[in-house]
Amino acid sequence: MSDGFDHIAEGLAGVARGFHARGWLLGTSGNLSAVIQRQPLQIAMSASGIDKGELRAEQILSIDENARATGGGKPSDESLLHIRIVKERGAGAVLHTHSIWNTILSDTYAGAGGIRIEGYEMLKGLQGVRTHEHAEWLPIVENSQDMPALAEMIGETLKKHKDAHGFLLRRHGLYSWGENLAQAKRHIEIFEFLLETIGRTLRIREQ
Amino acid sequence: MSDGFDHIAEGLAGVARGFHARGWLLGTSGNLSAVIQRQPLQIAMSASGIDKGELRAEQILSIDENARATGGGKPSDESLLHIRIVKERGAGAVLHTHSIWNTILSDTYAGAGGIRIEGYEMLKGLQGVRTHEHAEWLPIVENSQDMPALAEMIGETLKKHKDAHGFLLRRHGLYSWGENLAQAKRHIEIFEFLLETIGRTLRIREQ
Amino acid sequence: MSDGFDHIAEGLAGVARGFHARGWLLGTSGNLSAVIQRQPLQIAMSASGIDKGELRAEQILSIDENARATGGGKPSDESLLHIRIVKERGAGAVLHTHSIWNTILSDTYAGAGGIRIEGYEMLKGLQGVRTHEHAEWLPIVENSQDMPALAEMIGETLKKHKDAHGFLLRRHGLYSWGENLAQAKRHIEIFEFLLETIGRTLRIREQ
Amino acid sequence: MSDGFDHIAEGLAGVARGFHARGWLLGTSGNLSAVIQRQPLQIAMSASGIDKGELRAEQILSIDENARATGGGKPSDESLLHIRIVKERGAGAVLHTHSIWNTILSDTYAGAGGIRIEGYEMLKGLQGVRTHEHAEWLPIVENSQDMPALAEMIGETLKKHKDAHGFLLRRHGLYSWGENLAQAKRHIEIFEFLLETIGRTLRIREQ
Repeated sequence: MSDGFDHIAEGLAGVARGFHARGWLLGTSGNLSAVIQRQPLQIAMSASGIDKGELRAEQILSIDENARATGGGKPSDESLLHIRIVKERGAGAVLHTHSIWNTILSDTYAGAGGIRIEGYEMLKGLQGVRTHEHAEWLPIVENSQDMPALAEMIGETLKKHKDAHGFLLRRHGLYSWGENLAQAKRHIEIFEFLLETIGRTLRIREQ
Repeated sequence: MSDGFDHIAEGLAGVARGFHARGWLLGTSGNLSAVIQRQPLQIAMSASGIDKGELRAEQILSIDENARATGGGKPSDESLLHIRIVKERGAGAVLHTHSIWNTILSDTYAGAGGIRIEGYEMLKGLQGVRTHEHAEWLPIVENSQDMPALAEMIGETLKKHKDAHGFLLRRHGLYSWGENLAQAKRHIEIFEFLLETIGRTLRIREQ
Repeated sequence: MSDGFDHIAEGLAGVARGFHARGWLLGTSGNLSAVIQRQPLQIAMSASGIDKGELRAEQILSIDENARATGGGKPSDESLLHIRIVKERGAGAVLHTHSIWNTILSDTYAGAGGIRIEGYEMLKGLQGVRTHEHAEWLPIVENSQDMPALAEMIGETLKKHKDAHGFLLRRHGLYSWGENLAQAKRHIEIFEFLLETIGRTLRIREQ
Repeated sequence: MSDGFDHIAEGLAGVARGFHARGWLLGTSGNLSAVIQRQPLQIAMSASGIDKGELRAEQILSIDENARATGGGKPSDESLLHIRIVKERGAGAVLHTHSIWNTILSDTYAGAGGIRIEGYEMLKGLQGVRTHEHAEWLPIVENSQDMPALAEMIGETLKKHKDAHGFLLRRHGLYSWGENLAQAKRHIEIFEFLLETIGRTLRIREQ
């Protein structure tokens, strides 16, 4: 593979190990991707069923726009979702975590269809946000094992909420993205922080 | 010892240090094993009373099917439970953790005899599970210091709940297993994640 | 840059990586500074928008008393706040963290204008405090994106509460400082500990 | 210093760094000691005001039975408490942690004068305990800055509760000990685990 691929694969593996240490990718859950080239589309992506705490760059696959691995290995079932986000948002990297708090809140707020996050300084970590007075809508999409259908639903959600920096799959996890891997990592850290803050605040307020 | 043993012992020690860092094996608690050969049965197992945060491969014992250490060292009292699980499930590795959340939930749900876990994407990390709609029954067995009796009770529980991927000992801890060490580690991470998620959700819901 | 600068920059980068590991500087949030010289004022400070988990000494800027970077790089918007604290308190180092608990409590207690912390042995870690019977007032300042105005408000708060070892910005984060970096780090650790203790106690008490 | 001292000092520094990583020794809080010789008494002990996350063996002092440093350095104010425990229990090592949960529970249960811990498998990690049916009484002593008076009160508490493996100082922290450093470390891990378990259980039960 090219030098570019190797560099990106090292970056993805490093982010994976760090997120696993925080408990956001336990049990081989979650997946990570970054765009290698756009014409034709080539994406570096973590393979299916790998322990993210021990992910090495060699375990990163190269997939095409139909989610086929061009150099062997078994792509994650959720590759289709990554590809859809890359196309819909022009993202350079897409990250998907399973944390305790994103799992809980994706269920608590499912009835509302999303979580309105407002008034936190941390929101300024989301690309283009200049003030804590920003209101971010984090949509929640019902979970499904039918990946083409789920990709379709996510495509619609992204079109409907053009300013959203991420979304939750119900009782499943968080997706966020960025122009590059560093920005996507920043967005995941921001959302995980805000979701934990909201979850812990709920319990103080509602008592 | 054989190369195979050394390799497996390194693997067990690595998992032990990682789980200790997460607080799942504090105070020398918990134990880890993996099958070396089946005829006659030979199992690599963490010795009794060792700090899991500093476990080295040399501290892994080799025990036979009667839980006798074949090369010196004091086997854990719970070796009998590991052997029973290996025989009953054909497991290649058995892991036992003491976490805050598995301890709490093993008591909270003791009256129900187990915890029904359903509707979480993370369930797909359990071997053979294909959808989040799966309902996993995690049986809870009353704790005891009579190891032969406890092994018997666990044998019965495993026969009764043939699809279970683990069980809890009340106010004691979690047991899970897998075809090999990587799968057993994955199962423990999945259950620990789900138990913490359920425990934290309880507090939001019941308020 | 001078040897002194390099040494201080290494120190700031080390504290940043440690705090990021604890989740106190996620998503490029927070910032760190230390005084290089006072006449004219020269301050070493983390640049804007850098991942604190990977902060290297080379990414530390040198800024003057008008928050201009003397050697290139983009200073954080909050440099003005650091400079104000250095001048008002004669601090040798200023640290600013965004933790889950400081964010939550800065909102819970906003109506009271601050948090009275009293009766904890940990208070003795604050410079000059000799007994757990000490009552520390941790003021809460309303958040703002108008940095000169916010610096003004902080200046007034520091004048009004001459014994305060830190303050909170509402739904934003914690500022603390010290005669040197080690003392400032100690103060942050003390406040973060006490805020988490108070936050978790609230939930037991108010049930 | 002797080889024995160096070895013990390395051990204390290693435990300190590990406990600091868990958040049990933040802000230079807590202290650690181990007996070098008994006639006359010589104890290796962490110096006052040192960052436990960066503790090096060279920063460990040698103190005599009057808490005087025999080779320079400033002994911790709490040296008298360590010496009292060593004499009263014949301990080979004494460890003192400030954790969130031990701080909270030392206050919640202060009215009862202690915490009765019973029915947990983890209790078997305490020296001499053979069953989870054991009931451990963890006394709580009122905090004080008068060290000779506090040492006296602790001496009385240890005489009154001859089976206790540790005690809490109210809103201050946990003391535990062991025949050697490994056992003392094990005891601290056991108590910290059990206190967090009890604290989190309280909130589920009392809702």
